[in-house]
Order: sequence, then C-alpha cells, then structure tokens
Amino acid sequence: MPVNLTPPLAEQLLPVKGVALGITEAGIKKAERKDLMVMCLGDKARVAGVFTLNRFCAAPVTLCKQHLQSGKPIRALVVNTGNANAGTGEDGMNRARQTCAEVARLLACDDDQVLPFSTGVILEPWPVEKILTGLPAAVANLKENNWFDAAHAIMTTDILPKAVSRQISLGGKMVTITGIAKGSGMIHPNMATMLGYVATDAAVSQALLGTLVKYAADKSFNCITVDGDTSTNDSFMLIASGEADMPEISDAASAEYLALRDAVTELSQLLAQAIVRDGEGATKFMTIAVEGGASVAECRLVAYAIAHSPLVKTAFFASDPNLGRILAAIGYAGIADLNVDKIKLYLGDVLVAENGGRAASYQEQDGQRVMKAPEITVRVLLGRGTADATVWTCDFSYDYVKINAEYRS
Amino acid sequence: MPVNLTPPLAEQLLPVKGVALGITEAGIKKAERKDLMVMCLGDKARVAGVFTLNRFCAAPVTLCKQHLQSGKPIRALVVNTGNANAGTGEDGMNRARQTCAEVARLLACDDDQVLPFSTGVILEPWPVEKILTGLPAAVANLKENNWFDAAHAIMTTDILPKAVSRQISLGGKMVTITGIAKGSGMIHPNMATMLGYVATDAAVSQALLGTLVKYAADKSFNCITVDGDTSTNDSFMLIASGEADMPEISDAASAEYLALRDAVTELSQLLAQAIVRDGEGATKFMTIAVEGGASVAECRLVAYAIAHSPLVKTAFFASDPNLGRILAAIGYAGIADLNVDKIKLYLGDVLVAENGGRAASYQEQDGQRVMKAPEITVRVLLGRGTADATVWTCDFSYDYVKINAEYRS
Repeated sequence: MPVNLTPPLAEQLLPVKGVALGITEAGIKKAERKDLMVMCLGDKARVAGVFTLNRFCAAPVTLCKQHLQSGKPIRALVVNTGNANAGTGEDGMNRARQTCAEVARLLACDDDQVLPFSTGVILEPWPVEKILTGLPAAVANLKENNWFDAAHAIMTTDILPKAVSRQISLGGKMVTITGIAKGSGMIHPNMATMLGYVATDAAVSQALLGTLVKYAADKSFNCITVDGDTSTNDSFMLIASGEADMPEISDAASAEYLALRDAVTELSQLLAQAIVRDGEGATKFMTIAVEGGASVAECRLVAYAIAHSPLVKTAFFASDPNLGRILAAIGYAGIADLNVDKIKLYLGDVLVAENGGRAASYQEQDGQRVMKAPEITVRVLLGRGTADATVWTCDFSYDYVKINAEYRS
Repeated sequence: MPVNLTPPLAEQLLPVKGVALGITEAGIKKAERKDLMVMCLGDKARVAGVFTLNRFCAAPVTLCKQHLQSGKPIRALVVNTGNANAGTGEDGMNRARQTCAEVARLLACDDDQVLPFSTGVILEPWPVEKILTGLPAAVANLKENNWFDAAHAIMTTDILPKAVSRQISLGGKMVTITGIAKGSGMIHPNMATMLGYVATDAAVSQALLGTLVKYAADKSFNCITVDGDTSTNDSFMLIASGEADMPEISDAASAEYLALRDAVTELSQLLAQAIVRDGEGATKFMTIAVEGGASVAECRLVAYAIAHSPLVKTAFFASDPNLGRILAAIGYAGIADLNVDKIKLYLGDVLVAENGGRAASYQEQDGQRVMKAPEITVRVLLGRGTADATVWTCDFSYDYVKINAEYRS
C-alpha cells in the first residue's frame, strides 16, 4: 500500500477558471475504466512543458514538442492511458496526428493547437479507433470542476490518484493552483513514466512560464526515482489560464513571481512525492539528502547511487540497517577524488559512520529504530563544500517484482 | 536455482605446480563452514591483479595494492568470507596488517609478501582473533590438490562453487590453468563483490602478466552484472607459478602468449558467467549483445542500460516479451544523437523492432517462445558503426528480494 499517501477528496480540488476537463471510458485496455481525458483551455491560456530525454521518446512527445514550437496558443490537451504509443514508428505518429485533428475538429481549433499524451504499454499498436470513438463523450463531459475524475483517468499501475490544490494571494488577488499527476513505475530522474499537469488561473508571460516549469520540475519530478528507468513518455505541463483578474506576471524578480514559483514548486513536490509514496510495491518512503558537496551534480550522483541500489532498497524493505550497502553506493557513485574519511552518514538522527568506518557511538538498536519507521531520511555529509541535493525514493519489495512480472497479464 | 551451472567435480580440478591451498573453518560468521583459505606460492611465482574502483574500498584491497607495489615477490594470499573488512576505518587496516604479519610468520616471509582478501558484510568490526586462531590450521592443510575445497571456502551467498581447469600446449609443453571465483550479489561491471583467482604453472614476465590480467578481466568479470552494485572488495588475481618446464613468456606478440591469453580469458569468462548463472535469485541467463556502435563505450552503455533495468529484468523473470522496456532502456542509455529508426532489436533469432517500431513480421508467440528458455540472447544493432560489446546478466525474481532482505539474519 502507498506510504502515508492520502487520496484527495473531490471537494478539495479547486477548479481553475479557464481550464475545463472531460473524461470518458474509451475501453483502451480494460472495460469500465476512465482512460481518456481532454483538457480544454480558454483564449488567454499559456502552456509550457518539459519532456523525457529518452531517445526512444513516444510519438505524442514528439508531436507535443512540434506543436509547442509552432507558437500558436494551445487550446487542448488529450491524454490516454493503457497504451504509450511508444516504439510505434511512423504509424504511431500518424495515429497521434489523427487524434489531434479530431480534437481540433470537435473544439474548432487547429491541429497544432492540441497536445497529445499517452501512457501505458510500449511497442504495441496504438488503438486510435477507440480514442477517436471516445473523444466526443470526453468533450461532452468538459467542465471546470472535474479534476477529481481527471486524476483517476490518467492512472496506470497507480493505486491512488494524485491531486493537490492551493490558493495564494498575488498582489492582493487570490489565485488558484491545481495539479494532478500519475506514475508509479519506470520512475527516474528526468521524469520517467509520469505525467503531471499543473494549472493556475494566474496570468504569466510565455517566457516566464517556460522558466517556471523547468524550475519546478528540477525541484520535484526530477528528484524522484522508483526503479531508475526513464520512460519514453514523461511529460510535465504547466498551464496559466490568465483568467484571474490581475496583471500578467513577466518579471522574474517580482514578489508575485517568487510567490507563484514557490507555490507551484511546493505543489509539484507533493505530486512528485506522491508518485514515490505510491511507487510500485513501496512500503517505505526514503529521503536521501546529500550535503557538503563540491557541486550539486556530485551530490545528485551520490543521492541517486544510493536511491538506485537494489541492495540498499531491499535492506530498507527488510527494515535491516545493513548500512554498509549505503557506504558502498557512496563509494561507487563516481566522485573520483572522494576522501571517505571525511564522510559522515546519518540514518535519521543517528550518526552511523565517520572516519571511514562505523561511528563509535553507533548502536544497532538505534539504526533498527529508525529503519522500522515508514519514512526514513538518509543524510550524507560529504565534507567537500557547500552544495546539496535531495532525492526521494522508495524501497524494493516482493510486490515490485510481482507487479512488474505480471504487468501485461 | 542457478541457471545451467554444473558444479565442478573435485577430480576435474587440476593442481597447478607451485600453488598450494589450505582451508579451514574459522567460525567467522557461521560454525562448521569453510571460511578461511591460504594460498601459498613457490619462489618463481608472479602475481598480478585488478581491483574494485569503489572509493569506499575495503582495507584488504588497499593493503593488496600497497604490497603489490612493494615489488617483492608475493608468497601467499589469505582469503576470508563472512566479513568484508570494509567501512572499518583505520582499525580495519590494522587488523588486516596483523593478519598479513601472522601469515608471514607462519610461512617465513615478509609481511608485504602476503596479499589479504575479505568478502561478506560491510561496516562491522573484522573478527581478527578468529582469523589469527584459524590460520595455523589453514597452513597445516596446504596442498596443491585442494582447489575443490578452496572454491567452497570463498563462497558467501553463492549456491554452487565455481571452478574450472584447462590444459593447453605452449611450445610443445603442457601447462595447466585452474581458477576459482565467488560472487552472486553486488555484482556489477568493474567487478563487484567477486573474488577470482586464476593460476597457471606457465612462466610469464611480470609486465606481461599485468597486461594479461587486465585483458582477461575486461572480457570477463567486467562484462557481468547482477544488480548494478559495485562492491568494496572485488579482486581478480592472476598467478603464474613459473614451475612448468618452459622459457618465460615475455613477448606480447608470441604465439605462446596469445594461446595463454585466450585460454586464461576463456576460463575467466566461464567463471564470470558462473557468477551470473548463480546470481541471487536468478532463473534466467541473459546475453546482451550490442553491435554496430560507433564505439565500444557506447555499446557498453546500451548493454548495461538493458542489463540494469529492473523493468527488463522482471519481465524476463516472468517470461513476458514486454520488449518495449528494452527499447526504453536503449533510449535512455545516454547516446545523445541516437537515431532510433536505424535500430534493430532481436530476441534470440526473432526480429522484434526496426524503423522505430515493432517489426511487421513480429509475432507475440515467437517472442514468447524465446522468453521461455532459460538462456536468452538480446541483440541490438545500433546501425552507427562497427564496434560491439557483450554483457551477461540474469533476471530479477522474488528470490532476489528475499535473499537481500534477509542477508544478515
């Protein structure tokens, strides 16, 4: 079961003016499951996104980038689960184009004003007929107060939906931010099989929205890992509908921008952490904090070496303070001139290792106490500088193997 | 159970003249288990080795490197299981030094003519008293016909011992090569928790022996991965006792060297593959062959991305041809200018993907047929050049999690 993850209540999810969502059951992989979602945006909306770096990126990712580059205002997003439309070659591209064309026809806009997204199994023909058949029902369902159903419609192996809302005051005006995300396997830095959509009614210039989406992604979705696999389809989209009664934010140094940035980032972090809490087979939520590095890059190397180690992850699953495995991961992380004698390793508040070996004060029972909790912080002090980085991950359980061995059956 | 791994028979393991092995039960972690081994070398012996690149390398690894650099002829190797003497700081160094001193005293040589090796749990004090108490019995047991017991004495989570012998003719003289290895978890390129010892009675110059050990390691132990974790203790040692009645081999272009090189490499490959076949929880043996790369380095990137992916490994465990996961791994391997349309993916003899998508000829039942076999070859043609690389790995099963969750209990 997910680790300390409370599913959102429908009434907690606030509508964002100028953003309507329509959901339907298109029967893509399973019957009686919400699997197709259309998001329709008002005239003033601006959209910015970041995408997977996987070279085998899916057809919809390629098409999204093309349509965003066209410079035309985006009017709609269309998302399906059950099939990733990845590893589908030119045929997959054609089918994704067909879908954009049909959404454009239904909403009376141009094809390249529609952004497509897919998630699910890779390397299987994408069932475009089912999508096309389902679209009218999704469009007929469009309404602003539909985030709860939308959060369900984008789930794959997720056990719980992931959605959060916030309201903040910008220059005296209250604005709303609501976001949804999905993902629980093939999760890795640079975004892995995850889809995230965060919308606000604030008005933000296109340039600053592009800056903001990268900033928020770097501090949230790019700090998580479940299994180290970077997906073909990851996409994180930030939408500013511009419907709030306020001047456009275009100055990166303004108080309004900084407040919006921090709120969007915090909300994105909650969504990203929710993905880890619902990680496939997860029983523990781990925060890996690496401090005192010479650069952020080397702190991330160390944090990810720990977070990816199957040996570390299985030890956490067992609540076994087999902490030598963490030292080993630090040692192979890739810092060539690492002086292990300067490293301090903490498990929660317990000093475990220093001076290249076990701390004199360390007692197995203290390590055991920390390991038994469902939320654990591993803190590594490198003693090399002032940079730091944090990564969130989960443990590795029998259920991870079970879920992924049986995924297609 | 190990995949197609036949345990060696005692009578198949040929003694190497000038190399005597003594084994005892020192009670390091468990009672009634062979856990301490001394290898004693004759006067003419030469030794070369390669070691882990982990910065948190164990005390014995540091000491081995120091003693090899002293330039004195190595007279003995001492190996224990049950405790890695890693993450043990200065105390661990002192204890390893004490052990070398005691072996030196028993065999009447200098301390720095002894090489120490340890494997087992990390970050726990190394039980030097048990080692010192056990050494006389190990030395009393020294004999050339003791490789079978030695193969058992170095095991940790290994289910089966790993040992191979070969005889080849060099310039009309028959020489023997016998090797043993251990390892089944924390296995990764650049050697991971593995120990390997290969000895021959051939006479080889020190310089050429150093070349040979690197050559053989690069084509064997550096081509395997079980879980991507690089251990603190990996060591692969090549011993040429020089007792065969033949001139010393010192010319890298000579027929004798090339014949010896190929035989040592083949034997090392068998030992390395045995480690994967006995990988923790392994049910399948996978060969990942990447061809047509612009460089060996990029072929290895792709091969290891596939071999490390938990999603790929669990799909192989399930015999599920969920091959999109392989495409995803190729895509995130790190080749920036990869053109996915040029890639061909074969599962065994079955063409699975080309032109960026599923091959028109591909049928699920063909993929299923290959996946059901205990030995599977994944072949990736990159279409970028003429370089290639091969990596051996195993699948990821419930038992991997079980073994590693319960390792210390």
